[in-house]
Amino acid sequence: MAKYNFLLGCSLVLVVLFNGCLGQGRLPFRQGYECQLDRISALEPTNRIQSEAGLTEVWDSNEEQFQCSGVSVVRRVIEPNGLLLPSFTSAPELVYIERGRGITGLMMPGCPETYESLGRASFREEELRGERGLQGSHQDLHQKIRQFRRGDIIALPAGVAHWTYNNGDEPIVAVILLDTSNHANQLDQDFPRRFYLAGNPQQEHGHHQYRTGEMRRGERGNGNIFSGFDTRILAESFGVSEELARRLQSPQDERGNIVRVQEGLHVVRPPWRAGEEREFHRHSRYMDNGLEETICSARIRENIDDPARADIYTPQAGRLTTLNSFNLPILKFLRLSAEKGVLYRNSIMAPHYNLNAHSIVYCCLGRGRIQIVNERGNSVFNDELRQGQLVVVPQNFAVVKEAAEEAFEWIAFKTNENAMFQTLAGRTSAIRAMPVEVIANIYQISHEQAQRLKYNRPETTLFCSRSAETRRRPAVAAAAE
Amino acid sequence: MAKYNFLLGCSLVLVVLFNGCLGQGRLPFRQGYECQLDRISALEPTNRIQSEAGLTEVWDSNEEQFQCSGVSVVRRVIEPNGLLLPSFTSAPELVYIERGRGITGLMMPGCPETYESLGRASFREEELRGERGLQGSHQDLHQKIRQFRRGDIIALPAGVAHWTYNNGDEPIVAVILLDTSNHANQLDQDFPRRFYLAGNPQQEHGHHQYRTGEMRRGERGNGNIFSGFDTRILAESFGVSEELARRLQSPQDERGNIVRVQEGLHVVRPPWRAGEEREFHRHSRYMDNGLEETICSARIRENIDDPARADIYTPQAGRLTTLNSFNLPILKFLRLSAEKGVLYRNSIMAPHYNLNAHSIVYCCLGRGRIQIVNERGNSVFNDELRQGQLVVVPQNFAVVKEAAEEAFEWIAFKTNENAMFQTLAGRTSAIRAMPVEVIANIYQISHEQAQRLKYNRPETTLFCSRSAETRRRPAVAAAAE
Amino acid sequence: MAKYNFLLGCSLVLVVLFNGCLGQGRLPFRQGYECQLDRISALEPTNRIQSEAGLTEVWDSNEEQFQCSGVSVVRRVIEPNGLLLPSFTSAPELVYIERGRGITGLMMPGCPETYESLGRASFREEELRGERGLQGSHQDLHQKIRQFRRGDIIALPAGVAHWTYNNGDEPIVAVILLDTSNHANQLDQDFPRRFYLAGNPQQEHGHHQYRTGEMRRGERGNGNIFSGFDTRILAESFGVSEELARRLQSPQDERGNIVRVQEGLHVVRPPWRAGEEREFHRHSRYMDNGLEETICSARIRENIDDPARADIYTPQAGRLTTLNSFNLPILKFLRLSAEKGVLYRNSIMAPHYNLNAHSIVYCCLGRGRIQIVNERGNSVFNDELRQGQLVVVPQNFAVVKEAAEEAFEWIAFKTNENAMFQTLAGRTSAIRAMPVEVIANIYQISHEQAQRLKYNRPETTLFCSRSAETRRRPAVAAAAE
Repeated sequence: MAKYNFLLGCSLVLVVLFNGCLGQGRLPFRQGYECQLDRISALEPTNRIQSEAGLTEVWDSNEEQFQCSGVSVVRRVIEPNGLLLPSFTSAPELVYIERGRGITGLMMPGCPETYESLGRASFREEELRGERGLQGSHQDLHQKIRQFRRGDIIALPAGVAHWTYNNGDEPIVAVILLDTSNHANQLDQDFPRRFYLAGNPQQEHGHHQYRTGEMRRGERGNGNIFSGFDTRILAESFGVSEELARRLQSPQDERGNIVRVQEGLHVVRPPWRAGEEREFHRHSRYMDNGLEETICSARIRENIDDPARADIYTPQAGRLTTLNSFNLPILKFLRLSAEKGVLYRNSIMAPHYNLNAHSIVYCCLGRGRIQIVNERGNSVFNDELRQGQLVVVPQNFAVVKEAAEEAFEWIAFKTNENAMFQTLAGRTSAIRAMPVEVIANIYQISHEQAQRLKYNRPETTLFCSRSAETRRRPAVAAAAE
Repeated sequence: MAKYNFLLGCSLVLVVLFNGCLGQGRLPFRQGYECQLDRISALEPTNRIQSEAGLTEVWDSNEEQFQCSGVSVVRRVIEPNGLLLPSFTSAPELVYIERGRGITGLMMPGCPETYESLGRASFREEELRGERGLQGSHQDLHQKIRQFRRGDIIALPAGVAHWTYNNGDEPIVAVILLDTSNHANQLDQDFPRRFYLAGNPQQEHGHHQYRTGEMRRGERGNGNIFSGFDTRILAESFGVSEELARRLQSPQDERGNIVRVQEGLHVVRPPWRAGEEREFHRHSRYMDNGLEETICSARIRENIDDPARADIYTPQAGRLTTLNSFNLPILKFLRLSAEKGVLYRNSIMAPHYNLNAHSIVYCCLGRGRIQIVNERGNSVFNDELRQGQLVVVPQNFAVVKEAAEEAFEWIAFKTNENAMFQTLAGRTSAIRAMPVEVIANIYQISHEQAQRLKYNRPETTLFCSRSAETRRRPAVAAAAE
Repeated sequence: MAKYNFLLGCSLVLVVLFNGCLGQGRLPFRQGYECQLDRISALEPTNRIQSEAGLTEVWDSNEEQFQCSGVSVVRRVIEPNGLLLPSFTSAPELVYIERGRGITGLMMPGCPETYESLGRASFREEELRGERGLQGSHQDLHQKIRQFRRGDIIALPAGVAHWTYNNGDEPIVAVILLDTSNHANQLDQDFPRRFYLAGNPQQEHGHHQYRTGEMRRGERGNGNIFSGFDTRILAESFGVSEELARRLQSPQDERGNIVRVQEGLHVVRPPWRAGEEREFHRHSRYMDNGLEETICSARIRENIDDPARADIYTPQAGRLTTLNSFNLPILKFLRLSAEKGVLYRNSIMAPHYNLNAHSIVYCCLGRGRIQIVNERGNSVFNDELRQGQLVVVPQNFAVVKEAAEEAFEWIAFKTNENAMFQTLAGRTSAIRAMPVEVIANIYQISHEQAQRLKYNRPETTLFCSRSAETRRRPAVAAAAE
């Protein structure tokens, strides 16, 4: 009882902890760094870190695109039965599950151990439990475990440690954005530091190495947060022998950050319901007033792939789904949001610009052509973005996306919890907002031409390419529906 | 119907978008830049950009005053029938209308087209309307148009595109503050980038030129955000011919950023009421709870010149009017405020300091003497500020203003939505807040002298110079009223 | 009446002024500065500034620890009858009273003069009062005076001027944190500037000197904010003679920033109640909704030493008390919090890390051993912290504290208004949050060993060292209570 009261108090503190973050903005372009952004390229990961049961691929944080937008990106592959060691960073993270399914556990300070796993009780355990009067319960209490699957966005607050396990049949592929310019981060702005609770994994973003210009080969040097403590004090702290305490420091662990669980992990988690996917979402999308009752039960996951939930949908052209602080309130504290886009063949996402965010666009399927234009009217990117590639669209830069012979699917991470874009063509565009007379004068065209610019595209945001004949169809008429 | 529901949804998003900005602070002195501020000067614009129907004058953003306070300043003259091309920046803007009157249109993403202009329908238009069954309506729907006049402050949120037109008889003169250190800005901190939607205007703050140390002469290089796109994709996006799409890119436009509307713009706007000015303001100053219902109808304009609305008024000395997030709630999102000051001849604004903001002071009429003192007690500015000149008073620096033979009017932009100042003399001053005993001890003076310091100036903030005889009047008695 | 209405209006403004600060985060590691933090040391003040009635000791702001965490630290000794001259800075301050008692007056703009001191009325005063019809009142009105004593934390908002007086029998020793990376500060990030209202004190953090690499000896150059004004305009502003105005500028004052009040200060202040300490606190800890009615009456002080109010208490090990925005709401505006820790002999504070804040740890009694580990598992600090020494624990770095033959008391200033830490051992730790199966797999140990790690320490955060026999006691059983 007393325990739970204590925990309740802590949870309350947590609610406000994250409330506190509300006030936090983010930094502009890194100072002292020349952010010309005159030429942007489609980027692939440059660093691969293989581990026992998976792979971590890292985009080079030194790239101007990342330096200027203040983010880092990583892609992880976790094989079936692979367990990503628990870790935390001082930057909030947004994870997109490109493939696979699994479970994750967040270690929230002050949250109660509300989940019970039956586990495989050892003889010793039985004995101990007997002494404690807990007959035959075999119980192991721990904090909430959360399931995720393909198409999910997972929001991880800064500083909260978490582990992840692949309990599915195919590899998990996850793309992870770390927002180092976020004000939750009081450490370095340009390179995230990842703190592991176990193992001996290599630093992914290599603060020091990159700086000194070389990867020190053969160097161990890495370790987890227990490695640097005296074994004696660890033994004291955990009330165990120094021998066991030494295991926390894992000096001999060569498995890397993703380890194989030989016989599989048997933690208990609530089953997905029958009629699983649909039900699951209806359930998880309950309305709330923007503030969960406690952070311990806060939703940190939401699916962004389900076509039925698109925010913008044009049958012949594609769809656009947005996750922001409205449909995933914890994003308010992370100050990040996400957009999933699907463009069918021969379709266009209207020229537009992001008002209040950078947009980090990752192609998850097919390929598309993207054009990006800066404030001087210069094209800074005009290229194809292929599956697995990434490009940063800076705040306010104009951008257009196009799918030609192949459909184009992307996930865009945005550096504002309610990122907004303004389209320049189509219904709800900036052109529609202006009087015809203004349009005629600024472009030195006739009123009739101005009306064509304003009304010829009646669709919103997503257009399918027009054939020659449709283009000859009476223009304004098309705006009538 | 469906359309309006959609738009309503977007508006809601917008309300919160700007709410999101609530959390945004601003940066301190630019890092890596030596902000000694040992010597400040009165500055005039150094760069003049002439365009067809107006003039843009730019203060040099490289000046220490601007670099350290993280702002840029521009003055625009728009001639009658001049139209400022639509543009946006990633920095919020605060505009003071020094002279003239006009209209402006903001293109807010997601806001409905609630205004209808009759326009001059062409034959083609008539024809099209006939096809659409819109008989004789001649209507052109567009977003809200807002009027402004001399003495107004206009608040422009970051990233929102807007155009401006002079429909009056005299030139519009506008002084514009761009807050680049504002956290709404995720681009460069030191130079704002302006994105035009039309024309081919020159960049005002010349990010690259200044950096490379030379203005590349004869260089076009500029353009609008359509210039860098393929004409083909623009044609597709707008559903128009490539020929018309090419007009969006305006490669041949030599008119600059302010263009002449030959026969005048005939957009419809609600008339100013009879008994105009007064009524207009009473109306626009309705009480609200700090959060407009939707950003689409938010007030972005407020007059700061009307003597009847002064916050501090001393009949013989002058008046002071403040616009902050209380009387113009959108300033909460811009995190800026403004102060209009008028000092009559032979008057003083008490020595004071700004607690939580820099103050960018622009002299709009007459001239005054300003003294600014740093933390070491050194005078960093002791000079006259003449009409059209500008000086930055850094946060916490002590300042005194004085009008001698001429009255002195200024507008001060402040980098906090509720900028506060603490006076050092007069009623409500820091001296008044201290016990007489403390005053006597810190200045090593008698109690009587301490009382004189504390009570001899019964006025608040604005004082008229005392003649010799008044100074000999019983001191404390003056504090009695 | 009119006066009070005016003041009320101003107070309202203030409430929101500080609300405005809500949105303010803080900066990450100083950019352009290499924040390796590979080696941290226990620091003592390096600069001593003696004044008439006290001493100011300054920690070197150039130290990597301070540069990277964006704070400055100062210790002041104020002798009995010593008066610290009124001053303000653009950084919010958190003060810990290590010893002594005194009074302080904050000069809040817009707050009414609600305190009345009888003072020693001079003849001249009597005369003046007679003229004003204030018979025999001898009154001197000034703003609220606040008492403080050993163990108090005092929160000083940025830009608010304040004076402090020692009315006790022993010296006041105060440790002061200045949060220069706080967004309330729009001036330099690395060196706070202190503005004095009187005297001629030396700058403590020596912006310019440090930069140029040498202390300019024999240099005066310092002064107060009146020093740089023309005497004439000061005379005009205060309505006094130039002779008296010159006293404000204090050019000859050699007393330094802490001056002696020869006969003692006789300002009136409400008495501490009978049964003083306890009562006083019960009273001052009233519940509120997080927002004081007006800033003028806001609590800025709270005791953090009282053992009865500890948040975590283990009888044999020690206690931990936290002040955050819940129990001292003004911390919400300062975005700072504090922790007082007491470890008895042979006790440990569990290994832990700060999720969302740097922790600036000052040893106020005894000594303790501290170990700090970075993200690479390297020990960056493993040393004793002795009374009067200070060490910065960066955000997310793992840390363990230990008291051996002596008890260890510390005060920790934290750069978040609700700083949170996550323990790694003991109840409510990260280890407890994980399923036993996960623990077994990540550390490659048996289930039984994993259970020992998880359950052997049933205490929360503070542990007493176990003797050899207790360590052999059945492990899990210990978790049963």
